[in-house]
Amino acid sequence: MRDAFHEQLQHLNDRLVEMANLVEVAVREGTAALLEADARRAERVIAADAQIDRLQALVEERTFEQLALQQPVAADLRSLVAALRMVADLERMGDLAEHVAKIARMRYPECAIPEELKPTIAEMGHVAERMVHKVSKTVEASDVSRAVDLVAEDDEMDRLRRSLFHTLLDAEWKHGVEAAVDIALLGRYYERIADHAVSMARRVIYLVTGDVPARTS
Amino acid sequence: MRDAFHEQLQHLNDRLVEMANLVEVAVREGTAALLEADARRAERVIAADAQIDRLQALVEERTFEQLALQQPVAADLRSLVAALRMVADLERMGDLAEHVAKIARMRYPECAIPEELKPTIAEMGHVAERMVHKVSKTVEASDVSRAVDLVAEDDEMDRLRRSLFHTLLDAEWKHGVEAAVDIALLGRYYERIADHAVSMARRVIYLVTGDVPARTS
Repeated sequence: MRDAFHEQLQHLNDRLVEMANLVEVAVREGTAALLEADARRAERVIAADAQIDRLQALVEERTFEQLALQQPVAADLRSLVAALRMVADLERMGDLAEHVAKIARMRYPECAIPEELKPTIAEMGHVAERMVHKVSKTVEASDVSRAVDLVAEDDEMDRLRRSLFHTLLDAEWKHGVEAAVDIALLGRYYERIADHAVSMARRVIYLVTGDVPARTS
Repeated sequence: MRDAFHEQLQHLNDRLVEMANLVEVAVREGTAALLEADARRAERVIAADAQIDRLQALVEERTFEQLALQQPVAADLRSLVAALRMVADLERMGDLAEHVAKIARMRYPECAIPEELKPTIAEMGHVAERMVHKVSKTVEASDVSRAVDLVAEDDEMDRLRRSLFHTLLDAEWKHGVEAAVDIALLGRYYERIADHAVSMARRVIYLVTGDVPARTS
């Protein structure tokens, strides 16, 4: 009975890793669609979110079943509760990547990002993608060292967002209000993806060590 | 044993209602601080978020205890899992109201909102406050009729957000990029508060009827 249960836990963990991998692709492809004003790529990211949502429903259902059938305690219960929370983070991260793609699609055939801000947005995309990748590996291996690493990445994301807003609010800004609004919202989307990655990392640290890491936000 | 457990469930529900009431105040006061450029009011909203976070930690801990000690099934298990999710929604709504207050504080002694947009922002604040109020009453009374009502309120919020962006992106806009960026982010914050309220309403509908209402986003 216990063995079947741990197989189920492993199966749930595999689905979380699968979701994280899909989110990683969505962040990468959404950013590429944005920087290259590629409407077809944007459409693919938007369509692909349905698969993340399907996995969310599946993980929630299976977690609930395990709670009801196995009545787990201690570490097993902690794992299931953490899965419920991580699945919510991942679903939201997928939505945020989809929002990035929607801005790309909305401005097509124009590019939403002025030339001078492309390096900053590209870097925000890279940091977000790397954070999701590390979360995926952290969940896969319950490896706390990678989770700790995410906090430093999050600081880098904050720095990039500040730099983005600095450019937007500079008197030299000449791309108008529409571009500024798009970029402010994009800055927010990438920042929130990073926040959710940190939140997931905190859950893994808690699962592995039993310590609740300090809140970062 | 069962009775003590249902007392605990009631206690958890009371804490969720308490959190919702604090969020309602934060939305109302944050909006007032914003519209009246009132830094002291903004500070109070920002400081008050700590109490919402403390209640979140308390509800999470107690829910976990009940899962571990009582090993509930069926409706009782559903209630506890719903509590875990609703507490996350409420914590996030509190943060969003705090973000509204932070924009008020950042622009003080100026007002972040140009005169012509004050009615729209005031209305978004009212709709958000009303939605949180209805969620609070819904959770308190497990009253599904109020929960259904929230979807119509959410449509009104969408309409207001579109009107806001229409004004921002109009060629007549003369308040510059900084004001536009503030207002775009504020529009997003109010919209997300509404989304979380709808998400909580869906959880109550599920708890009471067993039906999963269609996703609205």
